[in-house]
Amino acid sequence: MQRVTDYIKQNYDRYFQELREFCAIPSVSTRSEHKGDIQRCAEWVANQMKSIGLENVRVFPTAGHPIVYGDWLHAPGKPTLLFYGHYDVQPAEPLALWQSPPWKLTLRNGDLYARGVVDDKGQVLMHFKALEAFMKMQRQLPVNVKFIIEGEEEVGSENIYKFIHREKDLLTCDGLLVSDTTMLGKGIPSVCYGLRGLCYFEVEITGPTTDLHSGSFGGAVPNPINILCEMMAKLHDKDGRVAIPGFYQDVRPLTRTERKELKALPFSEKRFQQTTGARQLVGEKGCSTVERIWARPTLDINGIYGGYTGEGAKTVIGSTATAKFSTRLVADQDPATISKLVRKHIERLAPKSVSIKFTIHSEGDAWLAPFDHPLVQAGKRALEKGFGKKAVFIREGGSIPLVAMMHNEFKRPCILLGYGLPNENAHAPNERLNLENFQKGILSLAYYYDEVSRVDDQSRGGRNPH
Amino acid sequence: MQRVTDYIKQNYDRYFQELREFCAIPSVSTRSEHKGDIQRCAEWVANQMKSIGLENVRVFPTAGHPIVYGDWLHAPGKPTLLFYGHYDVQPAEPLALWQSPPWKLTLRNGDLYARGVVDDKGQVLMHFKALEAFMKMQRQLPVNVKFIIEGEEEVGSENIYKFIHREKDLLTCDGLLVSDTTMLGKGIPSVCYGLRGLCYFEVEITGPTTDLHSGSFGGAVPNPINILCEMMAKLHDKDGRVAIPGFYQDVRPLTRTERKELKALPFSEKRFQQTTGARQLVGEKGCSTVERIWARPTLDINGIYGGYTGEGAKTVIGSTATAKFSTRLVADQDPATISKLVRKHIERLAPKSVSIKFTIHSEGDAWLAPFDHPLVQAGKRALEKGFGKKAVFIREGGSIPLVAMMHNEFKRPCILLGYGLPNENAHAPNERLNLENFQKGILSLAYYYDEVSRVDDQSRGGRNPH
Repeated sequence: MQRVTDYIKQNYDRYFQELREFCAIPSVSTRSEHKGDIQRCAEWVANQMKSIGLENVRVFPTAGHPIVYGDWLHAPGKPTLLFYGHYDVQPAEPLALWQSPPWKLTLRNGDLYARGVVDDKGQVLMHFKALEAFMKMQRQLPVNVKFIIEGEEEVGSENIYKFIHREKDLLTCDGLLVSDTTMLGKGIPSVCYGLRGLCYFEVEITGPTTDLHSGSFGGAVPNPINILCEMMAKLHDKDGRVAIPGFYQDVRPLTRTERKELKALPFSEKRFQQTTGARQLVGEKGCSTVERIWARPTLDINGIYGGYTGEGAKTVIGSTATAKFSTRLVADQDPATISKLVRKHIERLAPKSVSIKFTIHSEGDAWLAPFDHPLVQAGKRALEKGFGKKAVFIREGGSIPLVAMMHNEFKRPCILLGYGLPNENAHAPNERLNLENFQKGILSLAYYYDEVSRVDDQSRGGRNPH
Repeated sequence: MQRVTDYIKQNYDRYFQELREFCAIPSVSTRSEHKGDIQRCAEWVANQMKSIGLENVRVFPTAGHPIVYGDWLHAPGKPTLLFYGHYDVQPAEPLALWQSPPWKLTLRNGDLYARGVVDDKGQVLMHFKALEAFMKMQRQLPVNVKFIIEGEEEVGSENIYKFIHREKDLLTCDGLLVSDTTMLGKGIPSVCYGLRGLCYFEVEITGPTTDLHSGSFGGAVPNPINILCEMMAKLHDKDGRVAIPGFYQDVRPLTRTERKELKALPFSEKRFQQTTGARQLVGEKGCSTVERIWARPTLDINGIYGGYTGEGAKTVIGSTATAKFSTRLVADQDPATISKLVRKHIERLAPKSVSIKFTIHSEGDAWLAPFDHPLVQAGKRALEKGFGKKAVFIREGGSIPLVAMMHNEFKRPCILLGYGLPNENAHAPNERLNLENFQKGILSLAYYYDEVSRVDDQSRGGRNPH
């Protein structure tokens, strides 16, 4: 391994140049005028794969943007890892807010600035560079690998779902590997082993069939906004718990070990509060902030509107009022079951004087890796070797539907090694990636592939992750 | 009177032609491109006043649109009535929805169609025509009259407030007269003796200082929409009463006589419900619909917004949420007191985790005429003579701030003789005025001026209306 890590350290400058090339392609998936750039970027990824020695490299066309595949399968008896990443990026606008050009990778105060540098081009390239070092120094890889890099992550990943389902045989693996998340904080290398699920709803309340004058009708007709507020107010109890009957029934509680790990995390509630700007943190009684955002299901109203929303005053009783709200789920809550409970509760809350329209926008599973699984534990050891610092296990309050989907499709553990930092402006102007995390991240990935090669066959195949 | 009423009946055709001229002027007060039309319309009104024999006719310029004044004060010992009306109109758009051109008075199925025909040009002209008949047949009027016709009613009447205050001496009177409201229904001539007041508020709740990702932060930060809904839900109790402490303290209850009158009204709850399209009527427990909209104070949320309000789903926790809400007040509630109570209640409801911004958009008094006052009772008799039908006393749930202001300024009773019908599209395409109401209305106004001439000095001056 010494030769591999030395090689990596000697080539940092070249990696910067290659990352600069990668980031120079404005592969904005949401804009049709970038169709050519997307194609060019997919080809850049394919060439990169070939240049480091991956085989069977193919650019799969889809109904949308292409998926790039490559593999190397000459380590018999060793685990096979399936890596997922994406080469598409968010639009760069508003351009005026960028301190350096978004399509020109720029190093400033220890950070690499460019659109897509952390989400996800930099993190994808880190894997290529880790593998390249093995190829150059050992003429082989320590494990078998398969790569799928898609071009539609920022627009919903629609076609890769179909692709994964169709090419399931091609993609068989012992574990899934993703680098598209963040570390807990600067200098705290992190293995993410859990994501929350998501059910997203919309309810529209109709009172009168048209807007009415609040003077001539006020006090005698059902006001849909008043009623919507009353209904929404009944979704939580006074202890901050979700008040939908049955909502917590299937929640898997934290184990004692997990709870201990969470407590030991260098997580500052004060800094978290400052990030939000809120006067106080709130939430479910009896839970810490980390528990609330990672390990407990929640319900938030994401949007509300009805009646007059312009400047000043208009004396109207609106015909309708609408709320968009969503639940974040944890293992082992079933999204379809939760949707049913929510619908039932909403229907029970609605008075007879109004009609309601209930819509389910999405249902996504929570995902939880068994954190004692050898492929997961290997992640921790690799990060500690690469960064020379203690690594932690974290969860993430958000959802990555694709991770849950791949998990369900392959029934294999998924390992999330994320090298971003919170507030690196993934979707905002001045997106950045810390240079040290980029460099040490490549080292840690080399260690990871090496660690995995020593995971024995029985332990990786012996059990299905939950 | 026979000669006066005969004269009116013989001149209906000419009235139609004059109303057509009046309505042909697009005196849209809200659009600066109609500035010339507004001026032309004010002059048309001034010429009309002169042509029927009013004196001291003046077009008062203001910071906005002009006010037209005229009087006739040669009936010593007789009451002086101050009539208020307006010559400005709403925009005609959307033009495509008009079945006949908005600026061309058209008779169709017994209704006169044109922008402004009911609000308020037709009703203003009816007064002129009633007085003209006296002038033609008797060379004098039965009472003293003063007219102020403004051009800013549809844009907030800002300048007439100052004008009335400044010209208080010019405008001294025994009673105020307004024709800008509606009858209870077709064939039910109505004297309106009460209007509700209005306090309009806005509250903005701020949780986090920026929008946050609902996955990474959901469940740990104060969600301003959740909190706003909880606060708004606490503005009513389960009996539909406003739950703000002290809110009902100064409410003047209906007298037994009023209650009896209201009960006897030909008011169909079923038809009212059908008008709204709502599944049920609701409101304060123990009150009829008519009581709820005319004689009880109410609170309605007029608008609400926060977070993501576009199509589909966005997993965001908004930084702010805003509600616009208003209370309709009845005598003897004081708007300033109510505003204080509402503010206090809102501040008490807001949890410490959020900041709130509370705005008062407007405060307007309720108005209630003493319905046993001779000038009010004269209205009922006049309507019954003019229409040959039983007239009723009604209130109106809405607010006409100017009426309350004039009432407070002059401490004289105000008589509201309205000739519109509900749903004559005052502010919508196909605005109309029923031809029969226009014609019988002129007769009833002639009877009213005649009736008032027989109200003796003591009774009209002997007490101040409440």
